[in-house]
Amino acid sequence: MNTDNHRQDVELARCTRLLNHGPVTIVTSQHDGRANVMSASWAMPLDFDPPKVVVVIDSHTLTRRLVEASGVFGLQLPAVAFARQTLAVGTSNGVEIDKFAAFDLRTFRGRQIDVPMLADCVAWFECKVIPDDAQRHDLILAEVVAAYADSRVYSHNRWHFEATPELRTCHYVAGGTFFATGEPFEVQATPPAVTGSSAPQP
Amino acid sequence: MNTDNHRQDVELARCTRLLNHGPVTIVTSQHDGRANVMSASWAMPLDFDPPKVVVVIDSHTLTRRLVEASGVFGLQLPAVAFARQTLAVGTSNGVEIDKFAAFDLRTFRGRQIDVPMLADCVAWFECKVIPDDAQRHDLILAEVVAAYADSRVYSHNRWHFEATPELRTCHYVAGGTFFATGEPFEVQATPPAVTGSSAPQP
Repeated sequence: MNTDNHRQDVELARCTRLLNHGPVTIVTSQHDGRANVMSASWAMPLDFDPPKVVVVIDSHTLTRRLVEASGVFGLQLPAVAFARQTLAVGTSNGVEIDKFAAFDLRTFRGRQIDVPMLADCVAWFECKVIPDDAQRHDLILAEVVAAYADSRVYSHNRWHFEATPELRTCHYVAGGTFFATGEPFEVQATPPAVTGSSAPQP
Repeated sequence: MNTDNHRQDVELARCTRLLNHGPVTIVTSQHDGRANVMSASWAMPLDFDPPKVVVVIDSHTLTRRLVEASGVFGLQLPAVAFARQTLAVGTSNGVEIDKFAAFDLRTFRGRQIDVPMLADCVAWFECKVIPDDAQRHDLILAEVVAAYADSRVYSHNRWHFEATPELRTCHYVAGGTFFATGEPFEVQATPPAVTGSSAPQP
């Protein structure tokens, strides 16, 4: 899987849409020559414009230490084809091993932040931490300063996984089990039934 | 769809697993005789035991007013078969209409909290707000005090949607588009390659 030629900018004001469906994420971080990578299921959008995200990062992790020291992190969405690595970086400890080397992870340098980003993902957010008291709950708030996605599966502000199912995003459950993102469907909002005081009088 | 006979308790210490895969949620609330219901894509677990969740609820909404006043809310997962209603309660205003009546939503009373819960969902959390400064970012932190799920799709702490695809959870994208939760798959963590200083000496 090589996504290097497929990374395409996503308009910042619409970029949280990439994360709206609740896929698992991977956080990359770097400070003072030391880098790390961990998966994070608990990440979601917080605001549209400027785009913000919130990620739960345990205070005991190396990632947390690097993120607090540098004030930046990379947040990326792995595809089904990258699930094995997603589990691996989520179940190993960056204090003990260099996970990038150990799991043979290809990286490129962030555009706005000095952090390694994972080449074999399908969407990327470069994030700047918004210092906040919520960190005592392990909630890391951040503004997204750059966003891009793999044009094979995301374009015109829409995901389209049909042609490349191996590039679908995924959703972590527990114990090594994931769900792939399933088929899209569209619904129309039901017009409300006419009831109570808002009923037109006959 | 009638889930009334299928609601089965989920162990609190494991209940955040219901939400781990990032499905869209619906928030129900009630205070002083007034009730409301809205959908919320931005909801995620925050801690395992005691189980906590965090939900983004805009400060301008009726739901937020009711949740802050009562200190409790219901959080539930709609199935694919309930997506139309999920969109409807997310795109209408509880100040203007009684959404329960307008969209013909069946409810039952929470066990631990005095809030209507939606009968036609597949998993339910009864939540008590943890008052916190993070509310200024619209982040509502809460402890889960009761959790249960539809036994047709969740048992032994696992989702199993195979037999009843219409009861799969769903993930909201934008503009009335959802993804159904896709097929499950399992991976084994890659053992790290032997590298650098942790390499055994030959």
